Amino acid sequence: MNAKFPLSIAVLGSGKGSNFQAITDTIQNGSLNARIVCVLSDVADAFILERARRLGIPADYIDPAPYKTKLDGAAELKTIKRLRHYRADLIVLAGFMRMLKSRLLAAFSGRIINIHPALLPAFPGLESWKQALTYGVKITGCTVHFVDAGMDTGAIILQKAVPVLDQDTPETLHARIQEQEYIAYPEAIRLLIDGQCGAWKKS
Amino acid sequence: MNAKFPLSIAVLGSGKGSNFQAITDTIQNGSLNARIVCVLSDVADAFILERARRLGIPADYIDPAPYKTKLDGAAELKTIKRLRHYRADLIVLAGFMRMLKSRLLAAFSGRIINIHPALLPAFPGLESWKQALTYGVKITGCTVHFVDAGMDTGAIILQKAVPVLDQDTPETLHARIQEQEYIAYPEAIRLLIDGQCGAWKKS
Repeated sequence: MNAKFPLSIAVLGSGKGSNFQAITDTIQNGSLNARIVCVLSDVADAFILERARRLGIPADYIDPAPYKTKLDGAAELKTIKRLRHYRADLIVLAGFMRMLKSRLLAAFSGRIINIHPALLPAFPGLESWKQALTYGVKITGCTVHFVDAGMDTGAIILQKAVPVLDQDTPETLHARIQEQEYIAYPEAIRLLIDGQCGAWKKS
Repeated sequence: MNAKFPLSIAVLGSGKGSNFQAITDTIQNGSLNARIVCVLSDVADAFILERARRLGIPADYIDPAPYKTKLDGAAELKTIKRLRHYRADLIVLAGFMRMLKSRLLAAFSGRIINIHPALLPAFPGLESWKQALTYGVKITGCTVHFVDAGMDTGAIILQKAVPVLDQDTPETLHARIQEQEYIAYPEAIRLLIDGQCGAWKKS
């Protein structure tokens, strides 16, 4: 089904927010029936917050202390509260460097997606473009997937292949994967909006 | 470097030999500087042996008893002897359903290749197209790789991507992967002949 009203998206990020920018660009050019209702970050000076503010989008820092690699405890509760406050339909992780835990996953069950710079299930975890180069694959890519309690294990929505070139360095390969991410992420959100992805329906 | 003389290839297979046929076709149309010097099979009535005989290529059955899943013991020794007798430069596994063991691997170190119907390291092992459908990936493919003692773990020579379609069954997906295998396997052998693959040099 086509959603009549724009999908309300919350974005969680820890870094520069280039995927957030790609999604915003796609919304602004009219080819994605969605709006970004807020950007949340666990890094106070992450550029993704600055990008959001420049676009007039609510942008909140959430202090993740005392945890280093997960969003848990008071930070998890505050995040849930913020996401509900902004009435997010879909949570989009865009370079968010923490594992989500059970309360947030349960609160937005089947409504949290992530993009991973490899063709999952190959090369989960960190710096997957380096993993791919080290292994010596000739094709890698990116994967948009639902988020579950595992590390990059949720149901896949969309994948894009990227050839590995003989002369690739980690940097050149990562850059070519990112180009595909900027296409893949808006396209995956469009599949969700259009109801073309079996695992998800906007309520 | 370009090899001056045709590369001598031995093919090991357990089934119908469609990849063997694709390689033979490529040789016959003049676009692969190679010749098949023998076909060996662990299955007495495998169609790959019949195909070879029709083409006038030596085709030998090697009794694998008493082992079920590996080529070991007397069968391994006999295989090494046969491969040396036919002076094979390169051993091509084409649907060969047994693990190779250390004596054969050592005798033809860096000279044995296989094709696997998935984008390794994803979905090693049996019926990888079913594994891919069950996981729900949107892109799979095939991988030509060197054979080592692991299960589909050797260095990769070439990969081809194949999209998974919403309406795919195991059969339709497997058929589309095989179409790419028939292109990939001759192409990978050509890379080896032309010295374009760093891991291998024809002596």
